[in-house]
Amino acid sequence: MTVYLLGAGPGPADLLTLRAARLLAEASVVVHDRLVSPDVLALVNPAAELIDVGKRPGCSNSQALINDLLISLGREHAQVVRLKGGDPFVFGRGGEELIALRDAGIDASVLPGLSSALSAPMAAGIPVTHRGLSQGIMVVTGHGEAGARVDFTTLALANLSLVILMGVARRASIAEELMSGGLDPSTPVAAVQSAWSEEQQVSRGELSELGQLDIASPAVIVIGPVAALELGIVTEIAASYA
Amino acid sequence: MTVYLLGAGPGPADLLTLRAARLLAEASVVVHDRLVSPDVLALVNPAAELIDVGKRPGCSNSQALINDLLISLGREHAQVVRLKGGDPFVFGRGGEELIALRDAGIDASVLPGLSSALSAPMAAGIPVTHRGLSQGIMVVTGHGEAGARVDFTTLALANLSLVILMGVARRASIAEELMSGGLDPSTPVAAVQSAWSEEQQVSRGELSELGQLDIASPAVIVIGPVAALELGIVTEIAASYA
Repeated sequence: MTVYLLGAGPGPADLLTLRAARLLAEASVVVHDRLVSPDVLALVNPAAELIDVGKRPGCSNSQALINDLLISLGREHAQVVRLKGGDPFVFGRGGEELIALRDAGIDASVLPGLSSALSAPMAAGIPVTHRGLSQGIMVVTGHGEAGARVDFTTLALANLSLVILMGVARRASIAEELMSGGLDPSTPVAAVQSAWSEEQQVSRGELSELGQLDIASPAVIVIGPVAALELGIVTEIAASYA
Repeated sequence: MTVYLLGAGPGPADLLTLRAARLLAEASVVVHDRLVSPDVLALVNPAAELIDVGKRPGCSNSQALINDLLISLGREHAQVVRLKGGDPFVFGRGGEELIALRDAGIDASVLPGLSSALSAPMAAGIPVTHRGLSQGIMVVTGHGEAGARVDFTTLALANLSLVILMGVARRASIAEELMSGGLDPSTPVAAVQSAWSEEQQVSRGELSELGQLDIASPAVIVIGPVAALELGIVTEIAASYA
């Protein structure tokens, strides 16, 4: 009995890893998030049970319930797949699920997926590192947990490309904090919505305008000189895998 | 005529994306780095020409030569693959190659791979984000370019998990800078060598000991409370793909 935590990547089925695709084809039960795309779910063994534990606004499955479900499935099935959008360890709460499984004595294994933190900027042609423009990357969320919100004033000092997930709602105040921390108001920003899908949209501007840019959630926001770049065409947005 | 920049991921062939595997099987010429594993190269179309442009100590192919090669191949071949370890946009100089191709009028497309920045910590069971321990991630290199070295004193203030690539040689002075920036000397550190291979080794300790830890290059260094975690077994290190 093993529970596999798999990253489903940014959406297109053929941006899964070969190993993840094989595990989905072999699984007898798959527990997935709401953000996992139908294209990815089409790779699941047709005989497998699919359980959607996506958290919807006003109708949340608590993390504790998901943990209990994984433990109970892990005791019944030879191979359970827990499928999470992006990467299980990048704001995916994969660590919490692994701790719950370990404490219950269930074998668990974790496998990476392409995180939107890196893949969404690429979909817009933005290299998150680039000689002379960016010496590195910071990845944070915009909402933060109660009492554990990121201090953007401090991040303004770091001189790295800043990638913000789940930051659309708070983008105006995040921009204010960054500017009060010393970041130039003319620093380029870009927001990538629905990356790697046919609905992809990219909004660009300057940091001082971030609050006014027309951006719908979910989107990945990139702040730094690299956000002005647009390198490499994306010829196939959502190639099918057969 | 299109040049595809593909990320080869951390090493095992089955940690490539399905799309990357398909493009390798279709390519007529593949230009690859030294760090791309033999397992990954085995996925290349057997009829394709393989060109190793890996930079070796004392025998470097300059980036300008690689750019020129890609341009000339892009003019001759219908489908060229430029295969880079990890992800082309995470310290992969993919942006520079795309600019050179664009300026020469060659169509180019870029596709993500699993960066060792995120996947190497996972191979050691380290969740780079974890509620209560890490609000986000910083990814930098340890060597830096001349005149563009990362200021680790500043990064010490950010309170995010720090992932350092290519930092083995300078690890003692990096630890000094982080401590002088205010990071607690007892902050957990981990170094992951040969992640996802059968030779994987993980060294753990505290920040004050980083310079003394026995670590061989290449390794990924993780600094922060999450570095003390070890969650999820890795059951299959180097599964083959057939």
